[in-house]
Amino acid sequence: MLVGLDPRVGQLPEPLRPRDANDLVAVAAAYREFCRGVIDVVAPLVAVVKPQSAFFEELGPPGVAVLVEVIRYARERGLLVILDAKRGDIGSTAEAYAAGMIGPNSPWGGDALTVNPYLGDDSLDPFVAAAKQHGGGAFVLVKTSNPGGRTFQDLVSGGQPIYRHVAGLVESLAAGSVGECGYGAVGAVVGATYPAQLAELRAAMPHTWFLVPGYGSQGGAGADVAAAFDQRGLGAVINSSRAIIFAHARKDYAGRFAASEWQRAVEAATREMIAELREHTTARHLA
Amino acid sequence: MLVGLDPRVGQLPEPLRPRDANDLVAVAAAYREFCRGVIDVVAPLVAVVKPQSAFFEELGPPGVAVLVEVIRYARERGLLVILDAKRGDIGSTAEAYAAGMIGPNSPWGGDALTVNPYLGDDSLDPFVAAAKQHGGGAFVLVKTSNPGGRTFQDLVSGGQPIYRHVAGLVESLAAGSVGECGYGAVGAVVGATYPAQLAELRAAMPHTWFLVPGYGSQGGAGADVAAAFDQRGLGAVINSSRAIIFAHARKDYAGRFAASEWQRAVEAATREMIAELREHTTARHLA
Repeated sequence: MLVGLDPRVGQLPEPLRPRDANDLVAVAAAYREFCRGVIDVVAPLVAVVKPQSAFFEELGPPGVAVLVEVIRYARERGLLVILDAKRGDIGSTAEAYAAGMIGPNSPWGGDALTVNPYLGDDSLDPFVAAAKQHGGGAFVLVKTSNPGGRTFQDLVSGGQPIYRHVAGLVESLAAGSVGECGYGAVGAVVGATYPAQLAELRAAMPHTWFLVPGYGSQGGAGADVAAAFDQRGLGAVINSSRAIIFAHARKDYAGRFAASEWQRAVEAATREMIAELREHTTARHLA
Repeated sequence: MLVGLDPRVGQLPEPLRPRDANDLVAVAAAYREFCRGVIDVVAPLVAVVKPQSAFFEELGPPGVAVLVEVIRYARERGLLVILDAKRGDIGSTAEAYAAGMIGPNSPWGGDALTVNPYLGDDSLDPFVAAAKQHGGGAFVLVKTSNPGGRTFQDLVSGGQPIYRHVAGLVESLAAGSVGECGYGAVGAVVGATYPAQLAELRAAMPHTWFLVPGYGSQGGAGADVAAAFDQRGLGAVINSSRAIIFAHARKDYAGRFAASEWQRAVEAATREMIAELREHTTARHLA
């Protein structure tokens, strides 16, 4: 599993909230403390974290600076970092995003990056090349977990929905970069809110890592994501963000943790999700 | 027309090149000077500039800080700024991008933002709402100018290519936000390398501003973009980036300008493009 780092100023544990939510430098500093606190808890329990770039970018330059610090801190604690920035562009512009964001020595320092496929095959190549070069990854949006994911992704062309056309390209890129585990440097983002599609895509994309958002607060549950894994318990990372990092505010945890104990809530929620995945899936490599 | 601000360290005019291209702070400072120099020249001649976020983001936090400075500088000189960042995400994440980037008082400070539609209708709503709120814009990728734009955008579903499905949604969003000029707060990115599609989309999207890249160095020419304008000469902004900002290196300008006169080359290229558009299109509002 992976823990999504989606800081929101209004949802921070009370001890970390800045006095002035409009002071972007103070909010960025609070995000730094919060994310470091989450990382300290989850680093022994999971393998991957996924910072959501938008919530840092929302603060402007101070937010971006803190995002880079958080990425470095996570890597120092032994975590892999998927930067969820959903970039996509063409030619030298895509190369600039890839050079800036993929690889531990890049300015943003992520191991992997989420990528949007709308601009087509040549727009993905620079991300794939950077992922191969740095032993990192590029996770391409295939079937997203939001209701609007149907608008264009489910349009049918030549007997197959658009997301299957995207899946075909992603699988071919993954098959061209297969490592020891049987999976390539290119992955797919496949939402957990569509379990049938998850199973269909797992079968169609045998060399492609799945990044599966939508678990927990977006409505997916343990059994829904079972189909993302192969028979060896490999092939997927299941993301949970808000249900973990804002566990202190979960209704089912009401009264269990004081505000100052928010990290204990994060730990409890992480262990609970690991247990759920162990019970409902073949996943064997959860940490 | 609009001038794209796409700084690349290897293509900067010689007097502005940093000693060490690996010193990201020095490169960012060079981009600041270069972009300010371009803006000083083009501000009296054109209405809009379009910084390409990727080239600033490539440098990490110092690049993002300079991008924000460049956006502010352009607005102070009376230019509108389309931030070309091709963002796209869902729900509160899309809201974070929109709040961070659209509006002169937002942390990034753009008037408008380019947006990727792959995640569907609900993913566009936050950008549209922010554009309406701030009197700004959201330009949605419809048909892109790269060869790979065909990969998914040209797949046919229900008798129409995917880009026409996207165009239909964008036009309905634009029609719902029409201002005095007859155009809405939502625009479309339509590449100039496909003149027939430009004409087809102009007819299908009467309330939608077109942002047309691909002019100049990507191969489009004056006559190719004529179809982007309506009969009043409104409805489109034509982008040229490298042929303007790196005009000092154009082969057809060889020997005309000394390295120190790179701004004179920018001015000559801008005036030349304005003249071409006047000759080949109905465009009447070029400045």
